[in-house]
Amino acid sequence: MAAPAPEAASSPEEIPDLEENAGHAERAQWVLNAPEPPSPLRELIDSVRDTVLPCGNKFLSLKNQPASDHVVSFLQGFFPILVWCRSYTATKFKNDLLAGLTIASLCIPQSIGYATLAKLDPQYGLYTSVVPPLIYAAMGTSREIAIGPVAVVSLLLPSMIQQFQDPVADPVSYTKLVLTATFFAGIFQAAFGILRLGFLVDFLSHAAIVGFVAGAAIVIGLQQLKGLLGINHFTSKTDIISVLESVWKSIHHHWDPHNFILGFAFLSFILTARFLGKKKQRLFWLPAIAPLLSVILSTLIVFLTKADKHGIKIVKHIKGGFNPSSVHQLQLTGPFVGEVAKVGLIVALVALTEAIAVGRSFASIKGYHLDGNKEMVAMGFMNIIGSFTSCYVATGSFSRTAVNFSAGCETLVSNIVMAITVIISLQLFTRLLYFTPIAILASIILSALPGLIDLNEAYNIWKIDKFDFLTCIAAFFGVLFVSVEIGLLVAVGISFAKILLISIRPGTETLGRIPGTDMFCDINQYPMAAKTPGAVIIRVKSALLCFANANIIVERIMTWVTEEAEDTKGNAKRTIQLVVLDTSSLMDIDTSGIASLQELHKNLTAHGMEFAIASPRWQVIHKLRLANFVSKIGGNVFLTVGEAVDASIGGKRATIQA
Amino acid sequence: MAAPAPEAASSPEEIPDLEENAGHAERAQWVLNAPEPPSPLRELIDSVRDTVLPCGNKFLSLKNQPASDHVVSFLQGFFPILVWCRSYTATKFKNDLLAGLTIASLCIPQSIGYATLAKLDPQYGLYTSVVPPLIYAAMGTSREIAIGPVAVVSLLLPSMIQQFQDPVADPVSYTKLVLTATFFAGIFQAAFGILRLGFLVDFLSHAAIVGFVAGAAIVIGLQQLKGLLGINHFTSKTDIISVLESVWKSIHHHWDPHNFILGFAFLSFILTARFLGKKKQRLFWLPAIAPLLSVILSTLIVFLTKADKHGIKIVKHIKGGFNPSSVHQLQLTGPFVGEVAKVGLIVALVALTEAIAVGRSFASIKGYHLDGNKEMVAMGFMNIIGSFTSCYVATGSFSRTAVNFSAGCETLVSNIVMAITVIISLQLFTRLLYFTPIAILASIILSALPGLIDLNEAYNIWKIDKFDFLTCIAAFFGVLFVSVEIGLLVAVGISFAKILLISIRPGTETLGRIPGTDMFCDINQYPMAAKTPGAVIIRVKSALLCFANANIIVERIMTWVTEEAEDTKGNAKRTIQLVVLDTSSLMDIDTSGIASLQELHKNLTAHGMEFAIASPRWQVIHKLRLANFVSKIGGNVFLTVGEAVDASIGGKRATIQA
Repeated sequence: MAAPAPEAASSPEEIPDLEENAGHAERAQWVLNAPEPPSPLRELIDSVRDTVLPCGNKFLSLKNQPASDHVVSFLQGFFPILVWCRSYTATKFKNDLLAGLTIASLCIPQSIGYATLAKLDPQYGLYTSVVPPLIYAAMGTSREIAIGPVAVVSLLLPSMIQQFQDPVADPVSYTKLVLTATFFAGIFQAAFGILRLGFLVDFLSHAAIVGFVAGAAIVIGLQQLKGLLGINHFTSKTDIISVLESVWKSIHHHWDPHNFILGFAFLSFILTARFLGKKKQRLFWLPAIAPLLSVILSTLIVFLTKADKHGIKIVKHIKGGFNPSSVHQLQLTGPFVGEVAKVGLIVALVALTEAIAVGRSFASIKGYHLDGNKEMVAMGFMNIIGSFTSCYVATGSFSRTAVNFSAGCETLVSNIVMAITVIISLQLFTRLLYFTPIAILASIILSALPGLIDLNEAYNIWKIDKFDFLTCIAAFFGVLFVSVEIGLLVAVGISFAKILLISIRPGTETLGRIPGTDMFCDINQYPMAAKTPGAVIIRVKSALLCFANANIIVERIMTWVTEEAEDTKGNAKRTIQLVVLDTSSLMDIDTSGIASLQELHKNLTAHGMEFAIASPRWQVIHKLRLANFVSKIGGNVFLTVGEAVDASIGGKRATIQA
Repeated sequence: MAAPAPEAASSPEEIPDLEENAGHAERAQWVLNAPEPPSPLRELIDSVRDTVLPCGNKFLSLKNQPASDHVVSFLQGFFPILVWCRSYTATKFKNDLLAGLTIASLCIPQSIGYATLAKLDPQYGLYTSVVPPLIYAAMGTSREIAIGPVAVVSLLLPSMIQQFQDPVADPVSYTKLVLTATFFAGIFQAAFGILRLGFLVDFLSHAAIVGFVAGAAIVIGLQQLKGLLGINHFTSKTDIISVLESVWKSIHHHWDPHNFILGFAFLSFILTARFLGKKKQRLFWLPAIAPLLSVILSTLIVFLTKADKHGIKIVKHIKGGFNPSSVHQLQLTGPFVGEVAKVGLIVALVALTEAIAVGRSFASIKGYHLDGNKEMVAMGFMNIIGSFTSCYVATGSFSRTAVNFSAGCETLVSNIVMAITVIISLQLFTRLLYFTPIAILASIILSALPGLIDLNEAYNIWKIDKFDFLTCIAAFFGVLFVSVEIGLLVAVGISFAKILLISIRPGTETLGRIPGTDMFCDINQYPMAAKTPGAVIIRVKSALLCFANANIIVERIMTWVTEEAEDTKGNAKRTIQLVVLDTSSLMDIDTSGIASLQELHKNLTAHGMEFAIASPRWQVIHKLRLANFVSKIGGNVFLTVGEAVDASIGGKRATIQA
């Protein structure tokens, strides 16, 4: 190829010296003669290797060590407790003991409440606060996370499982299915971790989580109206309209205001305690202890006044004792196994998303890094073993982790302390909970919900990214008005639609030279950028020039260039000699994209304009070369826009503001 | 912000003079103080306006003209024939007449064959070659396209409609539904054109079309086995396995070899004619006339030998006369209207894709531009009016357009000539076609199929883009082994999955300085690029830093940077002071992406490294500013990587090969 001979360099301050021009030509050759990029197969293998073995060399470096070291390091990889327990001290234990007791006092009433939300007997919540925290303490890498049942999962499980198994009509079969779903969730979580598919958790975007959790919080709150108002007949649906309809009907028929008065009084007490705890750092234990205190007080009141005879609904029998085995209850055959596995998958992802979000935010405060894949393996094993010991899906709880952190926990020993406390309670105190009013459990759950609705963050999202906000709102309304799964689905759908839209939107931007440099930038972003006379420099505003946008982009460029040229007939404003396409933003091009570029080139040539391509990336120049497009445009490919302009318009270019 | 004070400039050849440094600082301010990008709402409005009114100013410029001019230009816009008929000459007519007669001779047998493929009575094919070409001649902008029934659409219609209406059991209802689908297809096409949704056609990528058409060609060929072998009982499915099974069974039971011998003989004749036509340019009319010749000859043979009494299947009665009205046959109410509308939509898109692909390729040869939206309106009206006059979906035919072009057509008058010829045939000759053997129609269709299987193009796609080839193959096998719609669906799905994958794959590349410039490029693409001592310069290899890839990208950068830093403890190879993230390829960032960047910054700071961002695009810098991220990283944002490196490492940088 040869750029048209530059006309005599007339503008004195910009004469490109010959040596620099030689450099241009050489550099253009560098662009054209780049080594072949890795083949798609090679890229696939590399990508899999990067995902599976992010620290490949570490494994290799072990090769020369004795087998016992292998075993030790393998065990230490699986059970981080073997590493950190060596440096465990009495001081740390004092802190962990305090934190553990604090979260235990919060955990016992919450666990009972969440089990009710999950439509299970109350003891299942307590069981779930025993085995999973112990397993996680041995295998987990977070130091603050508090493991146990959580609100969102306790809502999600019944709302999906009751579609094929009614929890009221046949509670035994329902419980079996919940345990089976827990088993599947554990299997999926462990598998994701072992296969290093940690990125799957990222498919729920931050905005979607904010909206989803807020919607779920309101839905959970609405479910608590049953306990708070002492309603007998309640809808099994979770959307706001069905629930309010159900509440409205019940209020007109039969409900007992005593439940409401008792619940509301203690809710006010818990919220006041939280307010005080926030005000004075010293009183941090007050909000943590308030729920347990409420349970004790209200139980006493009911016991002493015999209020249960006057319409106050109580928990009644809670089965005590250590977690019974539930291996024989898992339903790995039967009609619903596929459905339950699906439930397990969704719950596994939601639980992981919550746990990893919680773990990461506290790890980042303390300045250490959380390995997502290792966390997944730990969560997976804790749920698998949990499903063998009458636990339902456990994960890291937002509220209890925060309490654990502010109570000054040092290691996962606080989880062990909590689990032991719950075991003791299960052995000794379950009989005492017989008279606990259900309205109190409802108010304990209600009191935990405001923390899940993050209006501040929603406002931030609105401020920064309107599209993200749309995702957030869609998830929120989806959960609120339709169902939990639809909310999730809509949020994921919108998130990916946004990616598609941004990747293929057919935008272009005009570039101008930044004064004092050889850079060409968007003239809208940099109003000081100067257009080059005689040349139009265009950059595609998407990452791909492909079937979905190539035609429309090329059509717009043509319309625009010809309009500019036609305008000049009257005004003689500018005669376009050169169109430079800056392909620096294009990650890839496909056969449709190349065909469109060929059409563009043909059309421009027909209008007497020259066409050049600047700064193509590896994949792009490789494909253009394979398609013989480079030779078709006379090798007009350059390293930078500046070089393309220099080569074509030569000394004639008039830069403004040197 | 202040970059850390550059250490004493020690390397003499690279002392940045003060003025240049001032320039850097000023330019960094340009990055930070860019005007606000258009709001999402503004962008949406602009995008809609660009789509709806691509030449907005043209409309405005009419304002000062009298109303009659408005009407004239409006009519001319709708009926381009009003423009080009003024300069029509006798010479042009001579060429068009010849071309029109040539395509008519090809069109008559093809139309009858395609109508049979569409499971309609033969006359519907002829009707479809009358009204649509006339309408298109008045409204279309292509000059070469030959309008009429085509193979792929004739296959698609029955394969979808027979799912709810059996064409054999109740041919009358089936025909009504086909006409209704044609009406809907026309409505959709016209609506796409009027709403300027031309880009919808692009959603079938080039590779998908190549695979789809090739698969459809084989499926159509298999359907012809029924006619060629004279089989009575044939499967209504279109996949290769069902068809071959059906053929296998029939051959074992009852079939008449006479049909096959006759069909095969004439197929050989047509193919030989085509071969001769390709060899000698003079004989271009031979392949065009061969099908009609075959029909006449074979009809005569059957008539004279009374072969129809000996097992040769014949067309029998074809209803003659001009297109009857079919307005009363449209089923706009009733049980299937939703289904039929769906069929109409799919057929509308496939027909448009074919027509616009054909039109564009010939327009590009002759060097004029085809307005996709105008084409859609023309196609829409021709199918709407077609559905009122007993026509099924018509579009531009690959094979006849090529014949029209090589016969030297000048304008759409050739289509008018063709339509008139077909009208005359309908009036006079349909009775003569009574004895035409069905095997001949099958061989005419078969002879047109090889042109649809473009192995060359498939090889090209394989060479250029392996992923595109996967789309192509998936469409091919989907059509061949499952069904026509599944093939389409799979192809579209894979195409969009590819876009997603490329947009969010979590790749990064290391940049180095290109010798003799201030450019930083991928060191794999440009092996001569030199790494900057003390700095790691990383560019994200995807268009978005978003929820789906931000975490994994940031984790990889951290692992990699810390590994590099740890390595140096032993080797003292390089101490990293600065990590520059080149964001030039990022089209957008979302809240998750910003959160990940914040984590990266925190981690890097903890390791004693500085973090800088170079060349952010408009949306990206705007969002980073809104999220207060810019102030968090101390304003370390630069116009170029070079300036980021200069500002931080200052005079210390050691460029290789100045």
